[in-house]
Amino acid sequence: MDLPKILKQYNELCEDNDWQVFHTPKNLASAMCVSSAKILEHYQWITEEESLSLARLPNSRDKIEAGIAETFFHLLALANRSGIDLEQAVLKKALKDAEDHQGAPDA
Amino acid sequence: MDLPKILKQYNELCEDNDWQVFHTPKNLASAMCVSSAKILEHYQWITEEESLSLARLPNSRDKIEAGIAETFFHLLALANRSGIDLEQAVLKKALKDAEDHQGAPDA
Amino acid sequence: MDLPKILKQYNELCEDNDWQVFHTPKNLASAMCVSSAKILEHYQWITEEESLSLARLPNSRDKIEAGIAETFFHLLALANRSGIDLEQAVLKKALKDAEDHQGAPDA
Amino acid sequence: MDLPKILKQYNELCEDNDWQVFHTPKNLASAMCVSSAKILEHYQWITEEESLSLARLPNSRDKIEAGIAETFFHLLALANRSGIDLEQAVLKKALKDAEDHQGAPDA
Repeated sequence: MDLPKILKQYNELCEDNDWQVFHTPKNLASAMCVSSAKILEHYQWITEEESLSLARLPNSRDKIEAGIAETFFHLLALANRSGIDLEQAVLKKALKDAEDHQGAPDA
Repeated sequence: MDLPKILKQYNELCEDNDWQVFHTPKNLASAMCVSSAKILEHYQWITEEESLSLARLPNSRDKIEAGIAETFFHLLALANRSGIDLEQAVLKKALKDAEDHQGAPDA
Repeated sequence: MDLPKILKQYNELCEDNDWQVFHTPKNLASAMCVSSAKILEHYQWITEEESLSLARLPNSRDKIEAGIAETFFHLLALANRSGIDLEQAVLKKALKDAEDHQGAPDA
Repeated sequence: MDLPKILKQYNELCEDNDWQVFHTPKNLASAMCVSSAKILEHYQWITEEESLSLARLPNSRDKIEAGIAETFFHLLALANRSGIDLEQAVLKKALKDAEDHQGAPDA
């Protein structure tokens, strides 16, 4: 995934449409909640077992795929506006998770 | 960002800790809502103006950074469990957004 | 508000439609997130100032009103399924909030 | 439940602590998402079956009870700030749900 390129294109789209004024961290964090909840909406009344195969239905799949991409764009924009480097954030989190579970019996 | 490598390491961590049984799409979509809302919690009572500089405070920044990474891991795991390719999802969404706004007066 | 009567009617509707099997606490908590986020969707890109008058537009008002009622039903059902008395919960919370802020300079 | 009395006391507490300035509809809708997600956090990795008995554990019960009350207060405040009568909203929704399902085979 060429993240820098995708981010650059997305930022250009935002600029072309004058979206930056709306993209405050407060609004982007709200938008992450909203787009995540729209994904959850597909799963809220089905069982975990049923949820395993939901994305095989083309209609559901397209909506879940679009919801994932939308949440990801909001997440990238929030990181960008907050001066947070996603790659660094991910490495730090992965390291912390690995440390937290290093001594676990099944590790 | 070497996404395939990060995803591989994360999947190994999940396997080592037997987390896959919990990582159903239904649970991962819930977890995305929860971790997004934990980010929003920092912004819920401040103004949009104030939200622009919140990540400059080291304590807030660390929590927002961790929340972004956590949401991203849940998002990657949901895509993975649903057979959705994040890169494809992002490209499709970027294309659709660009098309939707191609004819806009300020494009 | 005759809460016991409303709750009784709502429970009958759930029984008549065999909804109880879906109304596990896990699902109801998810549904509260989803219906809350659908309310937030109306506010996510507007300013706090603009949000003060949004409910004056009939179309927005109807959707916000429906979202509030839906979240309230999920909340009532979650309390009911969890053996939690909403009135007691509210009194306990009001008391705690009042205690927490009793010594505040402007109290 | 003496809702008007509880709402009056809650509004006084808000006034005494100068909270109204923070209680814009935009912020209250965010707060509903955050407090709902904090309830969901208790259920996100457990099964629906396990969720049925979670509120029997005193520690979990207290947190879920507090989360329900907090969400309810935000919901009341949002309705109040938006000029929406909760009782009317609930009756309208109950009527609509009953109508939508009147002709269902199992009604």
